[in-house]
Amino acid sequence: MSEYIITAAILIIGDEILSGKTQDTNTSYIAKALAKKGIDVLEVRIIQDDEAAIIFAVNELRSRYTYVLTTGGIGATHDDITASSIAKAFKTPLKENTNASAIIKNRSKEQPTDHYLSMAFMPEGSNLILNSLSEIPSFYIDNVYVLAGMPSVMKVMLDDVLPQLKSGQKVYTNSLTSNALEREIAKDLADIQSLFSNVSIGSYPFYDEHNKGTTLVLRSRNTDALKSATKKTLDMLRAYNHEPIIDFAIQI
Amino acid sequence: MSEYIITAAILIIGDEILSGKTQDTNTSYIAKALAKKGIDVLEVRIIQDDEAAIIFAVNELRSRYTYVLTTGGIGATHDDITASSIAKAFKTPLKENTNASAIIKNRSKEQPTDHYLSMAFMPEGSNLILNSLSEIPSFYIDNVYVLAGMPSVMKVMLDDVLPQLKSGQKVYTNSLTSNALEREIAKDLADIQSLFSNVSIGSYPFYDEHNKGTTLVLRSRNTDALKSATKKTLDMLRAYNHEPIIDFAIQI
Repeated sequence: MSEYIITAAILIIGDEILSGKTQDTNTSYIAKALAKKGIDVLEVRIIQDDEAAIIFAVNELRSRYTYVLTTGGIGATHDDITASSIAKAFKTPLKENTNASAIIKNRSKEQPTDHYLSMAFMPEGSNLILNSLSEIPSFYIDNVYVLAGMPSVMKVMLDDVLPQLKSGQKVYTNSLTSNALEREIAKDLADIQSLFSNVSIGSYPFYDEHNKGTTLVLRSRNTDALKSATKKTLDMLRAYNHEPIIDFAIQI
Repeated sequence: MSEYIITAAILIIGDEILSGKTQDTNTSYIAKALAKKGIDVLEVRIIQDDEAAIIFAVNELRSRYTYVLTTGGIGATHDDITASSIAKAFKTPLKENTNASAIIKNRSKEQPTDHYLSMAFMPEGSNLILNSLSEIPSFYIDNVYVLAGMPSVMKVMLDDVLPQLKSGQKVYTNSLTSNALEREIAKDLADIQSLFSNVSIGSYPFYDEHNKGTTLVLRSRNTDALKSATKKTLDMLRAYNHEPIIDFAIQI
């Protein structure tokens, strides 16, 4: 079975997320949506609304991954500098997109202000990303897709983007949660991992006043290998008298 | 008033966060704790448990920021590769830290396994980060501080690290939430921003079926400038008949 890997990075632009004041939920939503298409999200970055930071991150990420999806910084106020910064990253002028300005003018009762119309300015060579919630579109240029930061608007923009992205081969995940401690099972688990080069086995311990244990997460594009590795892991846990809580995408 | 700026990046290492299966909460916790010390978190990255990815990110971030705090990948299993990857990033050998192995041996009833003892292996030149919850320490080397991914353990390790970090000049934040729309106030807000080079004014619209409006966030190290800019912003909102919900660190 040939494997084709499509990768992505998510770039969250916004002082409020960085300061810890606002808990980011866009990352998790976008990562899950891309995973459903078999796209591997290999990196997430959160940066300030700062031109130099945006240019640096966009240029590094677009050269390293198939797709870059950004969120934030595309509103009508002075601190919305994502579009102009991405134009600079691509060394292309920021220009009025007449389709975008038509949409903005059409939804206004009166002549829109310059600040309001600024949302129609995009890097030359961009294509529109449609917004079925509040109409005002965003854009993509080359492999960089620019989404709103507001979760409700980000979601409808992502709906417009997803069908345009190439699909990869889906990764399936089985997980086993038990009271096994990492130090108890570490050697057996490493032995199982060494048998399956095409399965990635992650071990995530938990530890609080009520509960100690480990969630073992097996991930693979190959369902046969995933079944075999999961069965071996389950047998291993049972040999230590740990009966796990099972969450299987692929039954064994 | 002179300003001294201490910066930091947070590097979250873990497939589970990237896949969207686990919602990261460490970022927000660490960012808030650093903000209290006046340390500016300028970047967050989330990457896979992948050696090349860890080496690249650690080397880039440690050269760009005063401090780098990592979370994740320091347990006893085969997928815990943070310590060995950071040793490679620093081009220094991974060696047993005898203080760390003494702690591990001391808390074990029987001779610890090799996997269990692997948690005492750290880049040469590291210093210990203590763990008041489950004892097993982590390490820092130069400006890179390596914390556990489990939130409960991360928190006690951060307690050990924070007093060692330099303090910066604190940033104060005032925020004003109202039903003003960005397109209504964008010009006035830009005019206020242009008067205060040492205040950063962010505008964060919200939009759902119940509510539309904007949160304006004013941030500054200079409390006098923050007061003046906040007063002007409040007056501006009231001139449009918007009475905001006020969340002030510095009263005007």
